[in-house]
This record gives sequence, structure tokens and C-alpha cells, in this order.
Amino acid sequence: MSVRFGVLGAGRIGKVHAKAVSSNPDAKLVAVADAFADAATALAAQYGAEVRSISQIEAASDIDAVVICTPTDTHADLIERFSRAGKAIFCEKPVDLDAERVRACLKVVEETGAKLMVGFNRRFDPHFMAVRAAIDAGKIGDVEMVTITSRDPGAPPVDYIKRSGGIFRDMTIHDFDMARFLLGEEVVSVSAHAAVLVDPAIGEAGDFDSASLILETASGKQAVISNSRRATYGYDQRIEIHGSKGVVSAENQRPVSIEIANGDGYTRPPLHDFFMTRYTEAYANEIAAFISAIEKGTRISPSGKDGLIALQLADAALESVKTGMRVRVG
Amino acid sequence: MSVRFGVLGAGRIGKVHAKAVSSNPDAKLVAVADAFADAATALAAQYGAEVRSISQIEAASDIDAVVICTPTDTHADLIERFSRAGKAIFCEKPVDLDAERVRACLKVVEETGAKLMVGFNRRFDPHFMAVRAAIDAGKIGDVEMVTITSRDPGAPPVDYIKRSGGIFRDMTIHDFDMARFLLGEEVVSVSAHAAVLVDPAIGEAGDFDSASLILETASGKQAVISNSRRATYGYDQRIEIHGSKGVVSAENQRPVSIEIANGDGYTRPPLHDFFMTRYTEAYANEIAAFISAIEKGTRISPSGKDGLIALQLADAALESVKTGMRVRVG
Amino acid sequence: MSVRFGVLGAGRIGKVHAKAVSSNPDAKLVAVADAFADAATALAAQYGAEVRSISQIEAASDIDAVVICTPTDTHADLIERFSRAGKAIFCEKPVDLDAERVRACLKVVEETGAKLMVGFNRRFDPHFMAVRAAIDAGKIGDVEMVTITSRDPGAPPVDYIKRSGGIFRDMTIHDFDMARFLLGEEVVSVSAHAAVLVDPAIGEAGDFDSASLILETASGKQAVISNSRRATYGYDQRIEIHGSKGVVSAENQRPVSIEIANGDGYTRPPLHDFFMTRYTEAYANEIAAFISAIEKGTRISPSGKDGLIALQLADAALESVKTGMRVRVG
Amino acid sequence: MSVRFGVLGAGRIGKVHAKAVSSNPDAKLVAVADAFADAATALAAQYGAEVRSISQIEAASDIDAVVICTPTDTHADLIERFSRAGKAIFCEKPVDLDAERVRACLKVVEETGAKLMVGFNRRFDPHFMAVRAAIDAGKIGDVEMVTITSRDPGAPPVDYIKRSGGIFRDMTIHDFDMARFLLGEEVVSVSAHAAVLVDPAIGEAGDFDSASLILETASGKQAVISNSRRATYGYDQRIEIHGSKGVVSAENQRPVSIEIANGDGYTRPPLHDFFMTRYTEAYANEIAAFISAIEKGTRISPSGKDGLIALQLADAALESVKTGMRVRVG
Repeated sequence: MSVRFGVLGAGRIGKVHAKAVSSNPDAKLVAVADAFADAATALAAQYGAEVRSISQIEAASDIDAVVICTPTDTHADLIERFSRAGKAIFCEKPVDLDAERVRACLKVVEETGAKLMVGFNRRFDPHFMAVRAAIDAGKIGDVEMVTITSRDPGAPPVDYIKRSGGIFRDMTIHDFDMARFLLGEEVVSVSAHAAVLVDPAIGEAGDFDSASLILETASGKQAVISNSRRATYGYDQRIEIHGSKGVVSAENQRPVSIEIANGDGYTRPPLHDFFMTRYTEAYANEIAAFISAIEKGTRISPSGKDGLIALQLADAALESVKTGMRVRVG
Repeated sequence: MSVRFGVLGAGRIGKVHAKAVSSNPDAKLVAVADAFADAATALAAQYGAEVRSISQIEAASDIDAVVICTPTDTHADLIERFSRAGKAIFCEKPVDLDAERVRACLKVVEETGAKLMVGFNRRFDPHFMAVRAAIDAGKIGDVEMVTITSRDPGAPPVDYIKRSGGIFRDMTIHDFDMARFLLGEEVVSVSAHAAVLVDPAIGEAGDFDSASLILETASGKQAVISNSRRATYGYDQRIEIHGSKGVVSAENQRPVSIEIANGDGYTRPPLHDFFMTRYTEAYANEIAAFISAIEKGTRISPSGKDGLIALQLADAALESVKTGMRVRVG
Repeated sequence: MSVRFGVLGAGRIGKVHAKAVSSNPDAKLVAVADAFADAATALAAQYGAEVRSISQIEAASDIDAVVICTPTDTHADLIERFSRAGKAIFCEKPVDLDAERVRACLKVVEETGAKLMVGFNRRFDPHFMAVRAAIDAGKIGDVEMVTITSRDPGAPPVDYIKRSGGIFRDMTIHDFDMARFLLGEEVVSVSAHAAVLVDPAIGEAGDFDSASLILETASGKQAVISNSRRATYGYDQRIEIHGSKGVVSAENQRPVSIEIANGDGYTRPPLHDFFMTRYTEAYANEIAAFISAIEKGTRISPSGKDGLIALQLADAALESVKTGMRVRVG
Repeated sequence: MSVRFGVLGAGRIGKVHAKAVSSNPDAKLVAVADAFADAATALAAQYGAEVRSISQIEAASDIDAVVICTPTDTHADLIERFSRAGKAIFCEKPVDLDAERVRACLKVVEETGAKLMVGFNRRFDPHFMAVRAAIDAGKIGDVEMVTITSRDPGAPPVDYIKRSGGIFRDMTIHDFDMARFLLGEEVVSVSAHAAVLVDPAIGEAGDFDSASLILETASGKQAVISNSRRATYGYDQRIEIHGSKGVVSAENQRPVSIEIANGDGYTRPPLHDFFMTRYTEAYANEIAAFISAIEKGTRISPSGKDGLIALQLADAALESVKTGMRVRVG
């Protein structure tokens, strides 16, 4: 049996998921929808799929699952619609920028019994998966301290910043999820510092571009997150987990691993400079996991609740920056 | 326009090339041939191609190019047949284990004006390509000394060894080509030492499993090759080029790049343990280069002559081991 | 001219400094004092020095400088005595565990015009010095974010913990100084989380063994510190400074840099497991800098004030853990 | 008991050994001799030793051992004189550039029962010692293939080249000894290629500046050596030993281990650029081993015979380059 897909949104990330669906032997891309007809047509043609409207996909009997890659402010509504339509749903993060709206949406998901996966792609990066497997195999004993370094190659346009929900909801959100994925225990408090060091325009838009955070669990395990909207050397994505028996870490990834040495020293190339090339395998693995969970009827993870908790941590971080308090969560 | 392919041989490497052809937006897999009907059927079905006989593919007007993945002793004959049939030909190395037979075959290729590419996949590894690009960009000045480390995870079965042509024609052949690719100047002499250190059965089959070689060009540039049929830590494939201004190197590749540290030290996982996973990207790039050269009418490289020269270096190495002499080539 | 030294305290760290003084061509070890006569005698004999009492050294006309390596609770008194005696003073950190006592002591230093250097040895580690030199040379532009990982191979005895002043005053104190050394701007606020994850006995003694801290400067530069009393893989001492133009980091150090690979992977040996072997060069450089400053009459750094500020940061960190507040400093 | 030393020759390497002797708690530097009175006086003064003539040292009853750091053409004579004088002898390599002369000299050593150590300092490098210890501990099983990369930062003056005995006797000699140290089995044949790629003046002086060598033992173990008189990135000194169970290697050493990353990539500093800074610890360890062997009456290694065999391998390499033959040794 093959899972039959509709992809909603034919933009940058929609293309990534359409390719992942098409390349997966257990899935079939049936339809693509996009407000821009040309975009939908081009993407559908590339993979032998049809162009359909969202309503048509909602009503289609030949579609089992949808991938939601539309603008953020449509996510919650679409999740509700497709939950009611009985489709399995993969939705790009975030469900919504407002925690209340997310809660309401997840209530519908629960009531309808819909399958919902939220796109925290980094959980499916092979290197991070190997880190997690090492933890699960007991290689480092009990997890004690998680360190996440997450820096973007460059700041997005200020227009993007303005509707992004701010650095914590837009960027750190991935790191909150990764911290939870690695800590193995819920976070109960958050302390955050944030500043504008990269671009004053970001500050004028009411946001920050540089942040440091500490998360703590009930048993005292700690996660530290270091964020910057600037990394001249590429997309800086590292994790390190310190446990009672040892430490496990995943290094940065680069397109080619050569080294040139001369009188100036030994130089390796910069890192990947784009999240899509850095996380190519993660995107494919993520869709494969979604398909597999549908086929086997297993629990879907990361779930809508995972999306909600990450958002709550983002809200707590912002409150901590503003109040100078360690903020309790959950 | 799309290049229409027939794949001859549906074994391990045939599958790799069929996938590369199918995934390439500028190519179409039309037909698959194999002496084992089941193998051909399965592979054809996977990519929506037809099963045809070799003769049918030879005569087909809807096929522009073939990929020869049949047993080595059929390569030269098939190259000649498809040269005469006017198809572009990609042939897995080697063209033949006998240099005379290769010369005769290449004569037919020349007379028919056929396009022939020989499968030295390593030239298309992204890391090795980056090394070559660094050389071409003048980053290390004039090339002086090339070091190639090439060790297999484990020895093949003795049955394979017996019909392989020996370590130099079977394994070092890739390193001879890589040395030429990097030296930028033809090799004029070869010294080789070889021994049986891994498996006495290999010695009983008249072959060696451990070898060290020095190649030298007319201007005195040198390449050193270190080969072993055993590497407990995975498929060991490194190159280093030392030039007048500096050195450039490509490190080994591993499936995941994590590190675990404890009282025993800092441990990274073993390397890829299989040439197909190590050179996944190289195989895809290789077919892409073949397709591109056909479409653009550009020179095909590596050519049949590159295959012949590598074979001559293998013959010279064997002679050097036997005679204890530095053997002149070319 | 040679600077003539008395060393007060012939214990572990006294021996290190006695060796550094003796090996320095611009210094001479004249006398050693210790409450335990045997310890003083042995150390004095090793370097051809005399055993004297502290009072004798205080009154000696043939001694220019002292190195104070006695128990912490004697430091402030001895600094005051030797300030009044007109000696140059090198004192192991901390001056005292109580900030008020330190302030009173530094007042005497100021009034007497004594030269005082406080033993923040890490500033003199060649790798960290090279990091600082890279910053000063503008290699990474403006400093934005400092990350300090500082983990001990194992927890000290609980008896030590009890009189240590707690993890922040005993262990993090070095990291506070390092953060200031690298940030190039005073810290104005501190947030800290701390827990007992390594040894419950440490908690029973009223201390913590695992801590995460964020320091922030007036312009929003941030430093993150990760501390643990446990690191099975050795003495973990890393720094990374992220700036507007790039990042500079200093990796961990190990006694030998070999690598062994087999089917289990690639393994490098654990790190140094002792601060004295890790910082061997730092201790020698530190004393050399002290001697050089005396001879040239240049400003001594790190000064008593540096010691005081680090202590204030430790006090602030403890308050932050207790109150859940971001604590203002300075 | 302390071993009392005379150092013959107060030049660059004499200073290194004088320091090693003086710093060793089990030795005492009694006298220094040098044809240049000023050099001898300065070195003697630095360590509280006397200036004496070679004859005085020969006759001295308060000297147990000598370190010979005089010009190469005096080594054999001095070894003979001090053997007869009953002193233990440490002699810088080589004993002589002529194998016959070495043989004659070693005959005197044998007849007199003198203790003679030859200065192959690299055996005492802590990293290479750790490699050897890993082999001895069975970590890589049976040694199969040794790879030695040995490149100088820059070519010495042509005047030096002319009296050096050529690249094999002057530079590769260390690598021959290292190969034997690691192979654990005598070399029986040598193939060598050599060329002038760095400086034509070296060729005009009858020497080479770039060489590749293969050494083979009776059981087929192989060592490959890569030499160049040029390495823009510093003093390149690496070893790798491939065995039946795994591989062990020692990486290059650099003065500081920091890394700077920016848009151009990740850059670590160049290597040590001078053999004396690269092998600082090796020189001290070497003298310590000599002193220890004298005190304990244990076998001295590397011995005069080790020096002779390395020279024979150098002669064989030169013959191989000239004749194009694999040359048998021993």
C-alpha cells in the first residue's frame, strides 16, 4: 500500500517535501495546491501530480495525507479542516504563533482523532539521531547538561522578522524542541538574555538577534542554548550532551571535507550556508517517518503537543528577557 | 531533450546506475537487460522501464545511450557492438583485463566515432573534485607529490580474486587513475612492492593483498599508493597532494559524524564500510557528467584511453613486483 | 638584575611556583616558608633555597617578591603584611571568600602602593592567549558571545567543598575571570541555574556540582558558562568567542595526540586529567609575566581588583540561583 | 648518584642537550668544550659548568658521560677516544657518513665495552612513543604497513647540502630509523625515487629534494616514506601504522591549537616550523633515557648498530635511485 499525498503550498519548503514524498517508495504525490497557479503547475508537473484546490484535496477520496507548507497564519485553520476531513497531516512548524490558538487547534485534532506531525526536522538529522541513539544506548549514562549552538548564516529581511513572532518563536523554537528531545525530561524553568548585536533594524522591529538561554528540568538537568542571527562561517548547528558516564556531540556539517594548508595555516571550507542543504537528509527522513507511522499505525512524533510545548518555552523565554526573572513553565 | 538509456546488467552496480539515470531530470531509463530475467524484470519495474534483450537495445531507435554493467569479460565486445550501433556508451571499468584487447576495442570506438566513458567513479566524488578544483585554482602551486591511501574493508572471496586480474588491475586501477587525475602529467615509471599479509588463500590464488607503489612523471613528480585488502575501521580512501605552495587533502567519510567521549577517550564511528555508500554521490555525479557530455557534445572524460593507461600502469606494477625493477611506461 | 623570591607554602601549588621561579633566568628562589618544616626543607633543598619563617621573609632585605600559596583564609592577612613590607606579591586566588574582606585588603594594597598579582593562571595558557591575540588583532570583529566550557575530571572531597566557598567562588571564579578577559567589557548582570547531579553529598554540604550561567555586558554581549564537577573524559576546558566577523576557539588539550582506529571506530586518548598538567605552561608563563612586570615596572594584571570583580560575580551567581532573578552587578 | 656530563660542542644542538642534562635531577653538567672559546664560556656559564678542552674531559675523573655535538666528521674519532677513556657516550647522528668508517668505529666501541647511544631523537617523541606503546599493547594486531611523512619547512643552504651526505643520509636517515622502530622486523629491500622539485641548486650540488621510498621486510611488511625539503605549512612529521586489527597514527604538532572561522573557512595555525621546537620533549626524553640506562646498567637504545643500519638503508636508497633496482639490504 502506498500513502497518497496532497501538498499544500508549492514554495521553497513545499518543493522539498514534494520531492521527499515522490522519492519515497511507500508514497505517491497525487496533488499540489497553491494560491499561485504557476507554482502549483510547475511543481505538479515535475512529479507527475495534479493541480487541485485545497477544497478539492480536502474532499478527495484518493488522498490519504497532506503536507501543509502554506503561510504560518493558515496552519491552524488547515489542520482543523483536514483533521475533520480524516486526512493524516504533516504541518510545518509552527502550528500558530499564539499558544491559545494552538491549544484550540489541538483540541480539534484530539476530537477528530487525526494524525498530526509537526515539522521539527532536526530530530531526523542522521547525526542528531545518532546522538540520541547513543544516549538511548546508555553510552553517556544519565543526561546532565545539554549544549545547543544554533546560529544562522545571516539575518532574514526585517519584513520577515516583523511577522516571525520574534527570535524565540521563529528560530529558538527548533532548539527548544531539540533540548526536549535530548533532555528526556520536561523543562520546568527558563532564563533568557537577549540583545541586538547584529542589526539595529531588528531591534527597531522589536526583536532580538542574539540570545542565550538556560532551561532546567525538575531534576536539575540543564540545557544551554546559544543563538545568533549571524555566523560568517555558515550555518552553525551543534549539539553536545554531557552525561554521568561521558559526553556525546555532533559536529557541524560542510558540503565538502577537504583541507588546504600553507603558510597561513590549515583551512577547511565553511559550513553549509543554508538550512535546506544542511538538513537535506533530515527532510527526507522526516517524511519517511511520517509515512511509516501512517502505514504502521504507530504514534506520530513530534506531535502537535510537542509543537505547543516548544511555543510555550518561547513565550517563557521572552517573558524572562523582559522581566529578568527565571520563568516557570508547564 | 532527454537522453534515453538502456542499462545492460541488473546486478549490484547496474541498480546503482539505473537509479542515477532515473533520478536525473535530463535522462530517461527506457530498458533493462539481464541474463537473469527476474533481475531485469525487478529493476525495470522499479523505474517504469521495459525489459529488453541486448540485441533489442542495440537495434532500438528509442535508445541513445547504454550503461554496461555486465561481467568484465563481455565489456570489450559490448563496447564494439554498441559503438557500431551508434549509441553513447558508459562502461564500468575495466574495458578488459588484457591491454591488447583494450587497444583493439578502442580502435573500433575510434573508427566509429562512438562516445565512450569509462567508470572511474572516484573522479566524481565531491571531495576529490574539490581537491582537484583547489589544484586547478592554484591553491597549492605546482603539484609535487601525491599520496593515495586506498584500503578495502575486507578481502573479496577467493573466487572473485581468481578472475579479478589481480590486485593491481582490480583495486589499484582506481588509484592509478586518481594519481593521473591529480598529477596532471603522465607517469613514466613505476616501482611496486607487494605481499600476502591478509589471507594466505589470496597468495595461493597467485595474487597479493598488500601493496606499496611509487609512480613518477617525466618532471620528477611522484605519487605513492598504499593498498590493503583489509581495513578493520572501514573503507579507507584518502588523498593528499603536496605542492610548491601548500598541501590539499581529502579526509575519509563516515555515515554519521558524532563523537563520544569517556574514560577510554574520544571515539568517532568507523568509516563507510562499502564502496557504494562511500561513493553514492560519485556514482550519481558520474552519470550526470556522462549525460551532460552527450547533450552538450563535449569531450567525454574519463575516456577509453584513460582506461587503457590505468591498465598499463597495473601491468607495469606487476612486472615491477616480479622483476624488482623500476618499470618504464608509455 | 634578578628578582629574588620567597615562596610561602610548600604544598602542591607552592611546588609549581617554586619550580617556575627557579627555572626563570630573571628570578632567584631565595627562601621557602611552610608550617610543616619537612615540606619547606624538601622544597628549599630541591632548588638550593633556604628555609625561613614568614616573619623572616617579611623582614628580609634579600627578597623582592613573594608567592603566597598558603591556605585561602591567610591570603588577605599576608597580602596586607607583605604590602607593608614593600614586597611585590603574587597571590593564589582567591584573595578571600568574602568580598568585604577583599575590599579592605585591596585598600591596604592601594595605600602602600604594593604590586599585587592574583593567580588567574588561565589567562596565561598559550592557547587562550592566542585566542585573545586573535581577538585583539581584529580577526573576529567585535566580540558578541563567549562560550566557556569548564568541567572538572571529578568532584573534590566533601571536606574541601565545605570550606571552598561553593562552586561559584571555587570553580566558576576562573570562568568569570576568563569571561571578562575575553568580553572586553564589564559584566552588568548574571543569571545562574545550579543543581546537584553528580554527588548528593555535595548537596548535603550546601553546594552544587552542575551549573549553567549567563553573563551580560552593558552593550548586550553575552557569555555562557557550563560547569560540572564531573567529566569522565578528563579536564574539559574550552572557550569559543563568536564575533561580528567570525569565531575563534581553543580546543581541549591531551597528553598525547595519537588516534587508534578499528571496528569500534576512531579513538583519541582522554584529556589531561589534572589542572596542573593541563596548565603547566600557564603556570610558568604567569610567573614570568609577574617577574617581567616587576622588572619593567609595568602594570600588573590580573590585579587585586580583577580578583574582587570575579568574586562579586560569584556572589551574584549564587544570589541568582537562590532568588530566580537576573542579578545586577557593579 | 648523579651522572656527570661533559658536552662537546656548544652550538645549536649542544645547547639543547646541555639544557636537558642540567634540568635532569639525575645528572650534572660538569664541563663544556668548544673550538670557539666564547661559545663554550657562554654555555658553561648558563648552567654553572666549567669550560674544558676535549682532552681534559677525556682525562677527567669527575666526568662519567659525554654528549658529542661536534661536526659530523669528528664523531667517529671522538666516539673511539671516549670509548677508550671509559666514558658513556651519547652521539648526535650520524656516526659518520661512510658505512665503513662507522663499522670500524663500532668495532672499537664493542672492544672497549663502551656504552654508546645514537641521537635518533624521534623515538623519544611522546606521541611516537604512544604509537609504539599502542603497537606493543596489541591494539592494532600485527604491523603490516607503515607510512611516514617527513617534510622540512624549507631547504637548508646549498653549502650545508654539499657536506650533508645527501638527502637520504641527512634527512631520510631519521625516517629509516623510525620505520625500523615501528616495523619490528628488519628491512630487506628498498626501492626509491628521487627528484629535484624544490630548488635547482640542490640538483646542481648532486642531491635531491623530493623523494619517495618503499622498504620491505622479509615477511612482506612495507614502509612508505615521503620526503620533501619544502613544506610551506611547517615541519610535517606524521606516522601511521596499519595492522591486522586496526591502525594507529600520530598527527602533526602545532605551537597553539586554536581555530578561527569566517567566510573563508575554518583555519588552524601552521605547524611548528623548526625541528627543535617540534621535538623539544623528545630531546629531553632522549637524554633522560640515556641517563637512566647508564644508572640502571640497562641496554642502550638506539645503539651504534641502529645508526649503522639506518646508514646502510640510506646507501641502498641512493643506489636504488641510480640503478632503478630494488636494492637488497643486510
